[in-house]
Amino acid sequence: MSGYIQEDIDPEELAHRTELASAIAGSVRDLIDATVRTEVGETDIAEARRLIAAATEILRKDQLPGPFGIRFNADGTKRSWGNAVLGRRNPIAPPVDIRHETEHSWLEVDLGPQYEGPAGLVHGGVLALVFDQLLGSTAEFQGVPGMTGTLTVRYRRGTPLGPIRGEARVDRVEGVKTFVTGTISVDGEVTAESEGIFILPRWARGEVPEAMRKSVGEG
Amino acid sequence: MSGYIQEDIDPEELAHRTELASAIAGSVRDLIDATVRTEVGETDIAEARRLIAAATEILRKDQLPGPFGIRFNADGTKRSWGNAVLGRRNPIAPPVDIRHETEHSWLEVDLGPQYEGPAGLVHGGVLALVFDQLLGSTAEFQGVPGMTGTLTVRYRRGTPLGPIRGEARVDRVEGVKTFVTGTISVDGEVTAESEGIFILPRWARGEVPEAMRKSVGEG
Repeated sequence: MSGYIQEDIDPEELAHRTELASAIAGSVRDLIDATVRTEVGETDIAEARRLIAAATEILRKDQLPGPFGIRFNADGTKRSWGNAVLGRRNPIAPPVDIRHETEHSWLEVDLGPQYEGPAGLVHGGVLALVFDQLLGSTAEFQGVPGMTGTLTVRYRRGTPLGPIRGEARVDRVEGVKTFVTGTISVDGEVTAESEGIFILPRWARGEVPEAMRKSVGEG
Repeated sequence: MSGYIQEDIDPEELAHRTELASAIAGSVRDLIDATVRTEVGETDIAEARRLIAAATEILRKDQLPGPFGIRFNADGTKRSWGNAVLGRRNPIAPPVDIRHETEHSWLEVDLGPQYEGPAGLVHGGVLALVFDQLLGSTAEFQGVPGMTGTLTVRYRRGTPLGPIRGEARVDRVEGVKTFVTGTISVDGEVTAESEGIFILPRWARGEVPEAMRKSVGEG
């Protein structure tokens, strides 16, 4: 599968690159927030655009030809820096940091104004996006990974923009299918719940490297 | 409902503000793409961050105190500029432009490297995000709007990053529930399908302004 890359970067160099990735993405996240909320006029917009174009030009001096893909390191860590939910170097990702316990996985994240759907509320589709990643990562951590087959989200009430908590656990495994359930809550009250069915792709059955079946975590 | 704002901006001024919003968000979208794919080192990252911080400071000179919300104009148009899918001034939105026909609604959008999930593929949750908006907008255009009650997405195969097409239609209406179905396809082949149930919130029944029930479109 193209885009899945095995690397061997020494820990110090990897830590350095991770710091740079987090720093640049963090700066762009601040800019995204400022853009959604800005009320400045024409002259300021023009000046901001000039600065942004200059920054873009610098970053474009050396670019990957396509998406980041998924990279595995010799130490068992995985990098999905382009991932729309987890991606450290992806400014559209909050990014979410998923924690894995023995029996369940969880996340806490603060969703800003760029994740809006109904006025003042998190976009229902953004919650689906978070669920897809949380449930999929939970299956992967439990050693029964797969691509999303079906994702169902039930919305109990609106979820205000701001801090949310997600939790998920594997409900059952049937052959190549893993059933995972989860919730998103605000201040201890569940606002949405989800079930995902994850299916190990045909190409991965029996031939997938151990690192891809169960990585030790996002690097 | 706070965040739903009735405005009356004259067409020329609105066109001007729309142009500015699209311009600044477009510049930030280019920067996001460059950030996900950049391979430049420490010195360049530092210089890019300095420029981005300067741009952010300019945009922060005059800011909305919170999310953009949803604004209705006297001419019947609606602005959801902070919306995570449609938002003209939201750099994380592609943005998607949904077209409404008599019987169905559709969209075409090119999804770049910031929407990645599995290597080289659109994040399954991003497809759910697009479906939620497409199906919800379809219900709204047909005059039977609602907040998402349940969203189900079935993934038939991976969807490569790049151009996708979405289509949706109202399947049926049962009381306050609207059932909408849709597909996403690449090169004419369906890669994912979805059903959404949209429920008119209690607070909106019988008291929602006509403009909120059926707007003439995104402005």
